[in-house]
Amino acid sequence: MKPFGALLPFKQAVKVVDEHIEPITRTEVTGIDRAVGRVLAEDIVASQNTPPFDRAAMDGYAVIATDTSGASKETPCVLEMVGELHAGDSPGTAVGPGQCIRIATGAIMPEGADAVVMVEDTASRNGRIEIYKEAQSFSNVSKKGEDIRAGETVLSYGTYLDAGKIGVLASQGIQNVKVYEKPRVAIMPSGEEVVELGKELKQGQLYDINTYTMLSVVEENGGIPVRLGIISDNPEDILAKITEALNKCDFVVISGGSSVGEKDLIADVVEERGDILFHGVEIKPGKPTMFALVEGKPVFGMPGYPTSCLVNSYLFLVPALRKMARLPRKRIQTAKAKIARTTSGAKDRMQFMTVKVEGDEAIPVFTESGAITSISRADGYIEIEAGGSVEKGETVTVTFF
Amino acid sequence: MKPFGALLPFKQAVKVVDEHIEPITRTEVTGIDRAVGRVLAEDIVASQNTPPFDRAAMDGYAVIATDTSGASKETPCVLEMVGELHAGDSPGTAVGPGQCIRIATGAIMPEGADAVVMVEDTASRNGRIEIYKEAQSFSNVSKKGEDIRAGETVLSYGTYLDAGKIGVLASQGIQNVKVYEKPRVAIMPSGEEVVELGKELKQGQLYDINTYTMLSVVEENGGIPVRLGIISDNPEDILAKITEALNKCDFVVISGGSSVGEKDLIADVVEERGDILFHGVEIKPGKPTMFALVEGKPVFGMPGYPTSCLVNSYLFLVPALRKMARLPRKRIQTAKAKIARTTSGAKDRMQFMTVKVEGDEAIPVFTESGAITSISRADGYIEIEAGGSVEKGETVTVTFF
Repeated sequence: MKPFGALLPFKQAVKVVDEHIEPITRTEVTGIDRAVGRVLAEDIVASQNTPPFDRAAMDGYAVIATDTSGASKETPCVLEMVGELHAGDSPGTAVGPGQCIRIATGAIMPEGADAVVMVEDTASRNGRIEIYKEAQSFSNVSKKGEDIRAGETVLSYGTYLDAGKIGVLASQGIQNVKVYEKPRVAIMPSGEEVVELGKELKQGQLYDINTYTMLSVVEENGGIPVRLGIISDNPEDILAKITEALNKCDFVVISGGSSVGEKDLIADVVEERGDILFHGVEIKPGKPTMFALVEGKPVFGMPGYPTSCLVNSYLFLVPALRKMARLPRKRIQTAKAKIARTTSGAKDRMQFMTVKVEGDEAIPVFTESGAITSISRADGYIEIEAGGSVEKGETVTVTFF
Repeated sequence: MKPFGALLPFKQAVKVVDEHIEPITRTEVTGIDRAVGRVLAEDIVASQNTPPFDRAAMDGYAVIATDTSGASKETPCVLEMVGELHAGDSPGTAVGPGQCIRIATGAIMPEGADAVVMVEDTASRNGRIEIYKEAQSFSNVSKKGEDIRAGETVLSYGTYLDAGKIGVLASQGIQNVKVYEKPRVAIMPSGEEVVELGKELKQGQLYDINTYTMLSVVEENGGIPVRLGIISDNPEDILAKITEALNKCDFVVISGGSSVGEKDLIADVVEERGDILFHGVEIKPGKPTMFALVEGKPVFGMPGYPTSCLVNSYLFLVPALRKMARLPRKRIQTAKAKIARTTSGAKDRMQFMTVKVEGDEAIPVFTESGAITSISRADGYIEIEAGGSVEKGETVTVTFF
């Protein structure tokens, strides 16, 4: 059994990972109705003005602004109505001096008119329109191109497409856009005791938990999980599986087999094929976490224990995958809470203590790294420095998963 | 043109919507590999203990704890090694007094042994094992059922399935679960000037933006968007489309046609078929927003202007849809920032002023409700009370979309 070398401090480990992740360059075309949450892989230059024409911004009357000069409730200006325009209509009649056209929000401005008087500032009397408020040139008019001007770059490659950005694409009549592909992430649990769901458990065996927690994390962070089955504790099989993973995927995540047990062979195989950048981090849970580059592709060795594996997926895999997928960093959400009971961290490592938040209390739910409930009951974690502890009632910062 | 009646204050409008949304009751079965983000529709009772057996929590030696009594570096206790156990192995040999078995993390505990001494606290000398640390009964042993006990309800219906909860399902060997269906949301823009993407724009026409922003919002908040095409300004067509929408969907969202223009007929049709609960909210943008119940189903009338429509989708549709989908409320994310320039709100209504956050500055990006860039450039909004304003440099709270 070979012991770990020196453990890497957490922040350094995060930095090493970040420095070795390259954003994906492959692209694909998708409909804008399926593009929310994707990342644009082309610049979008406006082909047309938005709005494409001067239009009424209010319901009211299209007028020549100077005609309304000095108008007030007491001294209205009186105009002749010569037509009516709804949104979508093509204007025929022009507005001449002393005239106006009834106009609906969104309708194209008729020739001659340069302002809209809101309906609230008018009255219709004896077939003529009384205007109670002076209009300025272009008041209540949205000018052609005032939102988006034809020829301008409205969205740049690398833009994260949220609902608003999708709206910009639609405004230009764009149906399909080039986006970056989602990174393909190979997920491979290891361990002779791990059994696929659907099989009968024999003595000493456990169902495969890590595949399902990791694929959930991958799906929620812009990747495509690719399941390649359970790796057995056999060097040839390990090599074959890793080779297959590297051929098919952009990113490889293995769980288990990276501890110091005699039969933990994965690190040896990875080392033969590439460079291990760290193997062992000064955190609990997560001491055995490994990160390597093999044929230029990132390979994570996550701890085999379900809570360790998932906590480390949140800590390391999420930022790495999001960087590769060109997604914005996950916005870290924290809250202050009072710890529900006195809690000690690990003696020699920083502890990510999983907690559940109820009201203003943070309740530690960590029992042991091997327990899935240590994380399934948690809303997030608090950090406890090596050798530190928090006293019951002390205020702590909870970072939500 | 009929003017609005009294506008409803924002908070009251939010409350009215909330009170009239029923969580969905239809369920479906899905694989746990596709269940992240879904909501459980059944209680999950553990069929088996996790771990299913007493197992080693560390690499080391399985011992009888009392054998190690008083052991220390100076006075080691010396044991005979009678076997070796890896994870997944079925134990054969039992541990008798004075004996130990080399054991790997996760391996089933051999008969007779009740504790594991970590490898770091031992040495192998002349074929015998020196133990340097006294073990307590069950130290470094994960006991059968200590994580999950057979017969206990591990997850209840209504539980939001995040990665950790998916792990709990996997630990029980569960491959498929019953989840609530995603609500089907009919999306229908209205307006004679609105044209489907892919068609040529004629004079006075605009591309349909709202369908694409709203379907993005629906997809990101647990709904299935159902596109039913653009509604023309014709009462028969409006009635036919709404009827179709009510037949096919759980929720209906119409944009446009709910303002005070002469040809805004949607509210009339909705009123004939159901109850309008409000039409007009004291906010900017969003004055014309309508909410109704028709045949017991919620119907939103969103403003037609792209920024108004999307802001109101975030304010009203997101919480309503999440409640119907039984998703947890969206965690509101805020940040303090200094406003980049003096900014006034609306005189008579609360203003949701869209802003972009750069460093510690909040830059107002709202130009007008008709502009899509008023929201596509925004990260979130600040609230300005009716008649209020914020001075350049003042600290404001930005709520992120």
